[in-house]
Amino acid sequence: MKIYEFRAFPNPLRARMAAAEKGLTDRIEFIQVDVPNGEHKRPEFLQLNPVGKVPVLVLDDGTAIAECTAITEYLDHSAGTPVLTGESARQRAQIHMLQRRAEALVLDAASDYFHHATAGLGKLEPIQIKEWGEYQRQVAIKGMHYFDSVLRGRRYVMGEQLTMPDITLFAGLALIELLQIGIPETCKNLHVWRERVGQRPSASA
Amino acid sequence: MKIYEFRAFPNPLRARMAAAEKGLTDRIEFIQVDVPNGEHKRPEFLQLNPVGKVPVLVLDDGTAIAECTAITEYLDHSAGTPVLTGESARQRAQIHMLQRRAEALVLDAASDYFHHATAGLGKLEPIQIKEWGEYQRQVAIKGMHYFDSVLRGRRYVMGEQLTMPDITLFAGLALIELLQIGIPETCKNLHVWRERVGQRPSASA
Repeated sequence: MKIYEFRAFPNPLRARMAAAEKGLTDRIEFIQVDVPNGEHKRPEFLQLNPVGKVPVLVLDDGTAIAECTAITEYLDHSAGTPVLTGESARQRAQIHMLQRRAEALVLDAASDYFHHATAGLGKLEPIQIKEWGEYQRQVAIKGMHYFDSVLRGRRYVMGEQLTMPDITLFAGLALIELLQIGIPETCKNLHVWRERVGQRPSASA
Repeated sequence: MKIYEFRAFPNPLRARMAAAEKGLTDRIEFIQVDVPNGEHKRPEFLQLNPVGKVPVLVLDDGTAIAECTAITEYLDHSAGTPVLTGESARQRAQIHMLQRRAEALVLDAASDYFHHATAGLGKLEPIQIKEWGEYQRQVAIKGMHYFDSVLRGRRYVMGEQLTMPDITLFAGLALIELLQIGIPETCKNLHVWRERVGQRPSASA
């Protein structure tokens, strides 16, 4: 398998962490895409992912899988039991709910702030709507407070074990730090949790 | 089980269609939430879903599952084999990739147009950024062209069988019709597919 990525960005971190948690890192060739110079918007890359985003997982038969949830589903069901996405109907549902919230309320919100209210990717941005970016910054701050409440009394988002939403949230906080939005000091559970996840080998994969 | 919904809206349609495709409709009590009057933003409802959106699936033990992907995962794994979300690692990955694209490129884009560039839900809207809404309208139009190309030579998004992304895309087109955005005439495959999905009993569930 190959993963096309750009190491400095948060979504590729999600794919790398999922691969590492599943013990699959050694079976994957990681290929860097020059995002700052727009390689992800060129025809050859758009054939892999018409949406023009990294990461993309390419299977040995050439099948391209984009979108981090989809990549995580693949990796999680490729080796051993599905620990990241859950086994029972109930686990699967709760994991996917919290995963979507970690995207919409934290990672994607911070990403919108980056693309719309900072320099973003410069002339590669199709449009920049500053008011939208600033609004999404506020969404990300509210989202951190929400996850702080979810994490009260829990080691990980779902309880005792790390699952997909932990990875999404961790990548979201990495972006929030990069953009100097700051994790609110009052979010004590979130700070402790971030330290915990950061100590896992997968976090520096 | 109970599903809290507002029948006129596209996301509740996704949950109803998933339930009907799985033969679970009779086991679910559907409860209407008065969205136009802001019932989904009141404390009682926010206890079920802090994000303040319908639909929400409530299990018999009181567990609340929000987000349509999560609800679909639950229903799909609650009765028979998982036909909507796939069985193999590869099916699961492709379904989740196309599901996310149907949201981001069509349904959520059209929804942003509704909330930001039309009257939306009026004074219930926390913010309206017209330029963002208009931009997302263009995203939805491009998204329809993308899915028209996906559907070339296929009965459903994944091939022969209806899966989760078909439901998301169908709900997206229902919203696009409601908002009079219009499905481009040149999207012939999309028109034929929509007719096909519309004839399934689940589409009028």
